[in-house]
Amino acid sequence: MSQTKQRRPKAETPKGFRDYFGAEVTARKEMLDRIARVYHRYGFDPLETSAVETVEALGKFLPDVDRPNEGVFAWQEDGGAEGKAGDWLALRYDLTAPLARVAAQYRNDLPSPYRRYAMGPVWRNEKPGPGRFRQFYQCDADTVGASTVAADAEICAMLADVFEDLGLGGDFVVRINNRKVLNGVMEAAGVLDPADPSKFEAERGIVLRAIDKLDRLGEDGVRALLGEGRKDESGDFTKGAGLSARQVAKLLEFVRISSRIDDLTDRINSKQVSVGDTIAEKFEQLYPKLLRVLVRPSATEEHIEKFYRNVAAVAVLHDLVGETKSGSEGIDELVEMVDLLSAQGYGSDRVVIDPSVVRGLGYYTGPVFEAELTFEILDEKGRKRQFGSVAGGGRYDDLVKRFTGQAVPATGISIGVDRLLAALNAKGRVVADTTGPVVVTVMDRSRMSDYQKMVGELRRAGIRAEVYLGNPKNFGNQLKYADKRGSPVAIIQGSDEAARGVVQVKDLVLGARIAESATLEEWKDRPAQVEVPVADLVATVRDMLAKDSRG
Amino acid sequence: MSQTKQRRPKAETPKGFRDYFGAEVTARKEMLDRIARVYHRYGFDPLETSAVETVEALGKFLPDVDRPNEGVFAWQEDGGAEGKAGDWLALRYDLTAPLARVAAQYRNDLPSPYRRYAMGPVWRNEKPGPGRFRQFYQCDADTVGASTVAADAEICAMLADVFEDLGLGGDFVVRINNRKVLNGVMEAAGVLDPADPSKFEAERGIVLRAIDKLDRLGEDGVRALLGEGRKDESGDFTKGAGLSARQVAKLLEFVRISSRIDDLTDRINSKQVSVGDTIAEKFEQLYPKLLRVLVRPSATEEHIEKFYRNVAAVAVLHDLVGETKSGSEGIDELVEMVDLLSAQGYGSDRVVIDPSVVRGLGYYTGPVFEAELTFEILDEKGRKRQFGSVAGGGRYDDLVKRFTGQAVPATGISIGVDRLLAALNAKGRVVADTTGPVVVTVMDRSRMSDYQKMVGELRRAGIRAEVYLGNPKNFGNQLKYADKRGSPVAIIQGSDEAARGVVQVKDLVLGARIAESATLEEWKDRPAQVEVPVADLVATVRDMLAKDSRG
Repeated sequence: MSQTKQRRPKAETPKGFRDYFGAEVTARKEMLDRIARVYHRYGFDPLETSAVETVEALGKFLPDVDRPNEGVFAWQEDGGAEGKAGDWLALRYDLTAPLARVAAQYRNDLPSPYRRYAMGPVWRNEKPGPGRFRQFYQCDADTVGASTVAADAEICAMLADVFEDLGLGGDFVVRINNRKVLNGVMEAAGVLDPADPSKFEAERGIVLRAIDKLDRLGEDGVRALLGEGRKDESGDFTKGAGLSARQVAKLLEFVRISSRIDDLTDRINSKQVSVGDTIAEKFEQLYPKLLRVLVRPSATEEHIEKFYRNVAAVAVLHDLVGETKSGSEGIDELVEMVDLLSAQGYGSDRVVIDPSVVRGLGYYTGPVFEAELTFEILDEKGRKRQFGSVAGGGRYDDLVKRFTGQAVPATGISIGVDRLLAALNAKGRVVADTTGPVVVTVMDRSRMSDYQKMVGELRRAGIRAEVYLGNPKNFGNQLKYADKRGSPVAIIQGSDEAARGVVQVKDLVLGARIAESATLEEWKDRPAQVEVPVADLVATVRDMLAKDSRG
Repeated sequence: MSQTKQRRPKAETPKGFRDYFGAEVTARKEMLDRIARVYHRYGFDPLETSAVETVEALGKFLPDVDRPNEGVFAWQEDGGAEGKAGDWLALRYDLTAPLARVAAQYRNDLPSPYRRYAMGPVWRNEKPGPGRFRQFYQCDADTVGASTVAADAEICAMLADVFEDLGLGGDFVVRINNRKVLNGVMEAAGVLDPADPSKFEAERGIVLRAIDKLDRLGEDGVRALLGEGRKDESGDFTKGAGLSARQVAKLLEFVRISSRIDDLTDRINSKQVSVGDTIAEKFEQLYPKLLRVLVRPSATEEHIEKFYRNVAAVAVLHDLVGETKSGSEGIDELVEMVDLLSAQGYGSDRVVIDPSVVRGLGYYTGPVFEAELTFEILDEKGRKRQFGSVAGGGRYDDLVKRFTGQAVPATGISIGVDRLLAALNAKGRVVADTTGPVVVTVMDRSRMSDYQKMVGELRRAGIRAEVYLGNPKNFGNQLKYADKRGSPVAIIQGSDEAARGVVQVKDLVLGARIAESATLEEWKDRPAQVEVPVADLVATVRDMLAKDSRG
């Protein structure tokens, strides 16, 4: 093999990875900067952990993975001269696991509660697919050390503010649910014994992931996954939770809960059920905080109207799981959150109770949330559909305990950066400066220092500018270059202009359409071009840019 | 082993990695944002490549590494169902290798020349040490596809602007040299045969790295590395370049060149040598561009004075290597850069020819540059020393050729982000908002929704604010928390205040010193505290913050 001729390396991004160019970078940065300003306003501090963690510290909390050992990029360290085995290291797969490690490692130094935000890439060792990358950005905010749902409500309010500040007001809804409600459902179905919940630990994840797949698999698919298992179109078999038919039926009753809530909301709104009497009376004892929101002096008619959906949800949930300990705790927490959010003016137009929110992750213990964008886009087949989920999170009280043995309450949200950026693009809400630089062309390469002087003056005036640094021989190439760069203005100075102390200033925004085919002489004749003394260069360019931007 | 009790994972950052908190993150971000604005003004576009590359694409260009296979974090991909061997992937060790890959991969789509900047972490699998981390930020700008030194001069001007914009004007110098000058030295010493430079390829890197270590090892150390080799204090032996005593002597003459330049500069400045006559006459034929800068109509007395050092450097270099083809080409390119920079107003107070700049990397082919901060700091032993190098770069015309077989000229700079940030810290030039949030304390946990309402109003007014979300039972803990957070203002509303529709607004900046030991009653009596109607909360806090920031 030593005689093999050395072959050239392939110039390729590794499979499942991608590069981001120009405006793709600045648009994301602008979006993250705006989100950071909201997080900052809420008192959250930035944290940037290293991309690399020990496999031990990362743990096994990957979402949507049935075999949790997979899914990370990992390698073993050299053991060093002593010959002992090195640590296993891995790239972080999310920003929550590193936070749990930090909360444990610095627990004596950090303020408590500790509010932190983090933005950066995470890595998943998964099979890449269309639009599915193995490195992507997340943007998280979490509160560690706050045990009450006031912390969860705050996260939801902050999420709503993020969308408002990004220009998506009226186009989003934050859906909230509570894992305790789900436990209540499982208690009511007889699959979870409240006296010994650990017995059900293994099946719990399977049940949650099955319910979470309702949208994708439909009721039959979920039924199969809750029972014996399911064979997909490719013939692959996924083992089910092994529940009895009666248990599956009870869980499916829960899966259908949204339509029951819809019905009750309609009946309230059409006055078939009177909130003021029937429901309010019942809730006065059960959920006084919910009632308080209804009769809050500041509540407008419209506010109350919008609130009915949350009232209906609580009524239906109470009917389904109100008798179980878990279920009633979960409903109490949901009502508490609605009360706190309502006090800050976040009505059910922005935050809504939705029992279908499950979140695949096994580690959530209380409130769970999901933010959905409600405007419609066309899918790849040209059909209208809602844009859908762009963020999710919830309360996870046991992640830090892994390290310290002591329970540390925590709650947080993770925004899918690429999805949200795609949404902003779809709505035309992306603000990224895509204007190219002013290009000073090179007519006479021996006078490069004169061109450099011009470009230096433009830059000192704050104008984005460059000298053409390719081979200046073919002037057409310089124009093509300016075109490719999206340059608004080109500067030309041949030896005749230099002798007369003038420059040609050319408006490329006006001339763009024919620039590519024109000869130099044709091009110089166009009305969008002016000849000015060298001393007026900066002022002339500034005027032209101002006119271009007025369009 | 299956009976072993599961032990808790260690909550530790992996060895050689670190976490960044709060102001550490925002200060770096603010600095990088400022640098990006300069890069943008120069027409550079952002590029963000993935952190992961194939080992094949990365190549072996690690600086300062004698065994080039080491130094990266790498792992092998699963080969997939077909059982074939998977690709080797690795974390990027710099931002230049990914750029070379991108320039080859997208060569038909990118503008040419392609100016790009990149900012982000890179990873080195090295032995960690104090202040030496295995993940750190780089901030690069490169121009691909421009063959003339106008591109190199532009990079140097941009680097100078970066320092000016960061508030380091007068505290930096960009030192430039040219690899061709170094090749000329080696030709003159008879170690490099200009007719067949490839014969010397292997030793070349050793020689360059040896010369680059002059500061650290002194002349004797460099002499040993150029000859048979060197044993360091720990007894480790580094193989030398194996040059003859005569060759080493010639190279050492070059190593001492700085003091010759110093001497000549002094003699010019003290009129012992007349630039106007002797040198100018000689340079009229040899380096007309250098002369042009001297006699440029706009050149002030001070400008010319400052320029002498560059003139002296060219004179000494000419004497040493002017007769060799490489050496004379290198000097021509240095003179051309000085001419272009001078046209834009960058004199030798900011950009200076310095033949001692070598740069360890083997891949540089022409101009090399290094930016140094010239102010003094105290080292760990309390001795004054110059802050030193914070950025380096140069021209590398062969990196893209690895992929395509076609030579693509390229040049660029890399800023050491952590070093530069440390310099800004040392000079008090870091701008990062470290003000903590206004803290709304919780006197009565059943009225959490009232506190949430207050904090919501503060945030809507753009004021950073939070409700205390820990256990409110111990009010002292709330004050300690506000102190730890650096809160400027605390809000207090007990049930009596609530009944009267008022709040207490407490100026913590004034009260900070005794806050920790005071009881609630003492604390409420301090003059920095005012009682106002709830409706005046926002206005009162805003006033107080304005006073604090003036204070």
